[in-house]
Amino acid sequence: MSKVTSVSNEIRESMDSTGRNARAAAQIIAQAPTGVKNKALLAMAQRIEHDRERILEANAADLEAADTTGLSSALVDRLELTPERIGAMAQGLTQIAALADPVGEISDMNTRPSGITVGRMRVPLGVIGIIYESRPNVTADAAGLCLKSGNAAILRGGSEAFNSNRAISDCLAHGLVDVGLPEGVIQVLKTTDRSAVSAMLDSPEYLDVIVPRGGRGLIEKVSAESRVPVIRHLDGNCHVFVDASADVEKAVEIAFNAKCRRYGVCGAMETLLLANPIAQAVLEQLVPRYQEAGVELRGCERARSMIVECTNATEADWETEYLAPILAIRIVDGLDEAIAHIGRYGSGHTDAIVTNDLSRSQRFVREVDSSSVMVNASTQFADGFEYGLGAEIGISTDKLHVRGPVGLEGLTIQKYIVYGDGAIRP
Amino acid sequence: MSKVTSVSNEIRESMDSTGRNARAAAQIIAQAPTGVKNKALLAMAQRIEHDRERILEANAADLEAADTTGLSSALVDRLELTPERIGAMAQGLTQIAALADPVGEISDMNTRPSGITVGRMRVPLGVIGIIYESRPNVTADAAGLCLKSGNAAILRGGSEAFNSNRAISDCLAHGLVDVGLPEGVIQVLKTTDRSAVSAMLDSPEYLDVIVPRGGRGLIEKVSAESRVPVIRHLDGNCHVFVDASADVEKAVEIAFNAKCRRYGVCGAMETLLLANPIAQAVLEQLVPRYQEAGVELRGCERARSMIVECTNATEADWETEYLAPILAIRIVDGLDEAIAHIGRYGSGHTDAIVTNDLSRSQRFVREVDSSSVMVNASTQFADGFEYGLGAEIGISTDKLHVRGPVGLEGLTIQKYIVYGDGAIRP
Repeated sequence: MSKVTSVSNEIRESMDSTGRNARAAAQIIAQAPTGVKNKALLAMAQRIEHDRERILEANAADLEAADTTGLSSALVDRLELTPERIGAMAQGLTQIAALADPVGEISDMNTRPSGITVGRMRVPLGVIGIIYESRPNVTADAAGLCLKSGNAAILRGGSEAFNSNRAISDCLAHGLVDVGLPEGVIQVLKTTDRSAVSAMLDSPEYLDVIVPRGGRGLIEKVSAESRVPVIRHLDGNCHVFVDASADVEKAVEIAFNAKCRRYGVCGAMETLLLANPIAQAVLEQLVPRYQEAGVELRGCERARSMIVECTNATEADWETEYLAPILAIRIVDGLDEAIAHIGRYGSGHTDAIVTNDLSRSQRFVREVDSSSVMVNASTQFADGFEYGLGAEIGISTDKLHVRGPVGLEGLTIQKYIVYGDGAIRP
Repeated sequence: MSKVTSVSNEIRESMDSTGRNARAAAQIIAQAPTGVKNKALLAMAQRIEHDRERILEANAADLEAADTTGLSSALVDRLELTPERIGAMAQGLTQIAALADPVGEISDMNTRPSGITVGRMRVPLGVIGIIYESRPNVTADAAGLCLKSGNAAILRGGSEAFNSNRAISDCLAHGLVDVGLPEGVIQVLKTTDRSAVSAMLDSPEYLDVIVPRGGRGLIEKVSAESRVPVIRHLDGNCHVFVDASADVEKAVEIAFNAKCRRYGVCGAMETLLLANPIAQAVLEQLVPRYQEAGVELRGCERARSMIVECTNATEADWETEYLAPILAIRIVDGLDEAIAHIGRYGSGHTDAIVTNDLSRSQRFVREVDSSSVMVNASTQFADGFEYGLGAEIGISTDKLHVRGPVGLEGLTIQKYIVYGDGAIRP
């Protein structure tokens, strides 16, 4: 079972106080009018623009510390803020202000034979915990989404971004105070003690859900230890299957875009499945393009017989989310084998079929059990903005509550509302 | 952290084999046509009617064992099957067959500026674990709901109902085999070893969600130990608040029905809150009716000054779900105090206001954070049938995934579906 980090009394007491503040603030923000929430978001955005230099200085201190501790260059890249990145943060908050408020939406009202009228009202979840790693922009993004959806938030960023997060959280607090909302609505933990994460995971009385954003290690720790329900964003081991009936041009464009548009995103294709009858025609056009882009190809035996430069794909390749210019290629007999491969090796994130056969497209959509299933579209579309959610707090690969990109609606739930006129149950 | 029961190798191996069967069956039942699922439900119902005598004999054996072990009379009452109860079980399955199939429903399809069309498709959760206590009828009810919603189920009933559950599960298996579905769709654990429950809680690889149905002890064990997400049905400490503007007649009828229609249901009112200006008028009519029904009254100081026979309500009374002919009564100054009382002592199950004031009714509906919030209706309406869900697997007091009565929809989730015509992301 779970391996639990021990939590000092000091950290526990600090969590209790943060948690109580959050619960009190949650009651207020849940009832806050849309206009007030939007004003707070805009005030936060303004303050971030206004404090640009201060945020950059704080970030410089973090970068200097990272240099001393020898943080990897990938992490340093995520940690670094530029004037553009700070501008994007402010813009993100402004965009969230422009989104429709999901709170209070009433739906499905209908009158029952007993005479009562029953419907559902969308309400915030309560207090949301976000545990994340180096990127300081998550502080503003996550806070904005939680606020707009009427939730209080407790944020725990990476210790390597301590100063940056502190500077950003000051801006957020200003925005709240500006419109008369309590600072407890958005609390950024001001400690680098790692056991603070464990204290959050052990606080179901204060937190309604935890959203971990980070690498596999973080997600696994949170899943194993948490007594609070978790919305997880796991690997994106995504597939494109090119069916025998596919249009070769479309298949080539989609397969190229799904791999090469960006290598490091969770919606990037990691394995290409080709129906045997069409494989040769697709590879003839596609392989030179991959080679030009510098993509390393690893194939099954049949694929290697069709591609000159292609190493042997092992079991590990089918299971791997490369997030890099490497692609596994497998030739399959047809739809059944493709669906079975995805069921066995996929991570339930995003998988696509390229086909012109209606019946096979329907089977693929029904039978592939992933959070997004696509027909004749690139897996790189897996994104809250592209789906029209406006913004996302992550992409859920869980099967409860919400699947796929999680926007404002995913941070709410429906309660039942019942109206009678003196109705008693017989 | 969690106190974990140790699990023997034998139980672990048995869980592994059950889990693998369930996963394989889940893939098949998820794709099964509505007609086939309905035929299976009707075949199960027929078989239960046909095997009525066999089930009664098995139940008699359980009742005899209960007599030896000295099971409480309340538990014996739940355990006992009669020809009528068996008939109701069969009827329940027939009713589930008549409900609309939620699987495959497509909604929210719209075309995005990029040209892709994005929507959502309702899909089963996968494998659902049900852990329950004495009532053998849960075996058929839960199996029926899981099957219709396209899920496989692993059921673990109380050891005191071992023979009854076995006889019922034979009928369910017959129904599955009759229509060519694998028996793995519904598996009833055939062991009385208590550690089998722990093995289920430690099986996130086989189970997508666990629904515990039983007393507080069971729910707490499951919440503390489970590595599988849980949909919980906790206490129903329900309130009725009579606002100063209420119609006295309606208030009296609702308050009487909410307490006295049935004492033992989770939607029964446990605390009555009365606005001071109307309290006297309501109590004058209501107290004699409670006294005639034999309801013991426990009140705050102001309530006791208005009621002759009324003992002193302590802090514990405000917190207690009596499930008995006992009622706590508190006189409050108005809406704010009522909402604060419910926020502090309520269990987030079902709470009602009786009022004729539109603005206060709206505030109550928005601000009371319970799974069902009612206006001018008895809390005893809290029920899946009454809400039009057809049947329920429980009433969720959790805040993620589903709140309130959980019917077929609560046993499903939506995935995203995306259509393009060769769409690539810029």
